[in-house]
Amino acid sequence: MSYLISFEGIEGCGKTTQLEMAAKFLRRSNIPILTTEEPGGTPLGDRIRKILLNRESFDICAEAELLLFVAARAQHVREVLQPALAKGQWILCDRFSDATMVYQGFARGIDEKWIKKLNDFATMSLKPRLTLLFDLPAETGLRRALQRMTNLPENSKEDRFEQEGLNFHENIRNGYLSLARREPDRFRIINAAEDITAIHKEVCRHLETLRKNS
Amino acid sequence: MSYLISFEGIEGCGKTTQLEMAAKFLRRSNIPILTTEEPGGTPLGDRIRKILLNRESFDICAEAELLLFVAARAQHVREVLQPALAKGQWILCDRFSDATMVYQGFARGIDEKWIKKLNDFATMSLKPRLTLLFDLPAETGLRRALQRMTNLPENSKEDRFEQEGLNFHENIRNGYLSLARREPDRFRIINAAEDITAIHKEVCRHLETLRKNS
Repeated sequence: MSYLISFEGIEGCGKTTQLEMAAKFLRRSNIPILTTEEPGGTPLGDRIRKILLNRESFDICAEAELLLFVAARAQHVREVLQPALAKGQWILCDRFSDATMVYQGFARGIDEKWIKKLNDFATMSLKPRLTLLFDLPAETGLRRALQRMTNLPENSKEDRFEQEGLNFHENIRNGYLSLARREPDRFRIINAAEDITAIHKEVCRHLETLRKNS
Repeated sequence: MSYLISFEGIEGCGKTTQLEMAAKFLRRSNIPILTTEEPGGTPLGDRIRKILLNRESFDICAEAELLLFVAARAQHVREVLQPALAKGQWILCDRFSDATMVYQGFARGIDEKWIKKLNDFATMSLKPRLTLLFDLPAETGLRRALQRMTNLPENSKEDRFEQEGLNFHENIRNGYLSLARREPDRFRIINAAEDITAIHKEVCRHLETLRKNS
């Protein structure tokens, strides 16, 4: 049995670290896995990611931003995710369709039904079997993310944080929680304010449940 | 009165040359004009264009290609076309929504209704007031385009022509003609196999008619 498992949450929630730890855990259990991320995961996706992260040098309207994320996803699903699922791999994916729903829908105000249509077109209606939502207050997440950034002074993300501010990230958090309430079978909400080991244990518990049911 | 006028047709149909000649004609008549092109026309659009023209170095699926064209268009409409129309300029645009309908719809087989929805989202339902379709047999167009390319041996387009072949471009031609039949009020079909001066005269005649009615 192969699964797509997405890792979601606001900036600084620790999802990328937890994804790497989960990958090690699954590899030790001899489960064939693939780790990947959005936007990115393909040569086209990497180029689109580069455009999206360099936005301070030119304008990107909300509509174009949405379409770029979805373009990267369309390529990712066809070039990477579908073949990996066909080979029987478990995929751990850092952000997926929910991120677009939350960032471009809840936060930027683009119609959610329209975003769902775009996501369905891009993914051929592929949905994660399990979505781990790393939930914590936006302030805690931003503080963590900014700490991480101070080691990378050239990183373009820092500006974005400051521009977008706390309210934006609180909206993102609330958007994720709202999606999780709508699909309780798919989402697991994890308290990301806990310490890293406790969070990892909870992640492993969810992965174990999935494996037992497969 | 300001107008969006699109120039459409297969590769080698001469639309870009005719656009430049039409721009000179309108400038001589003291009409404030803007010439632009798709994909492109904005810093974001130029980056997207570069991705689309470098496709031999990595895969771009038909769905991602469609979304990239539409992303460039969304930015182009908001950053360039709408402000120019608001300033009272006439816009001469080298390819617009019809190109996506024809290349991604007729030729690549993506559902036309879906492409129309994407175009409406990108353009906020902005349509050209006049679309000049430079029509000629695909074989003639390809021969002209390839001749032009021999002066630019590094140009990446040449490979694309050979890969896609004559049938593809015949489909494009038929797609354009089919769109023109559906919207006879907006489209003017111009015989692009005529000589360059005769074509220019016909273009000027259509532009004059538009000006007289404005």
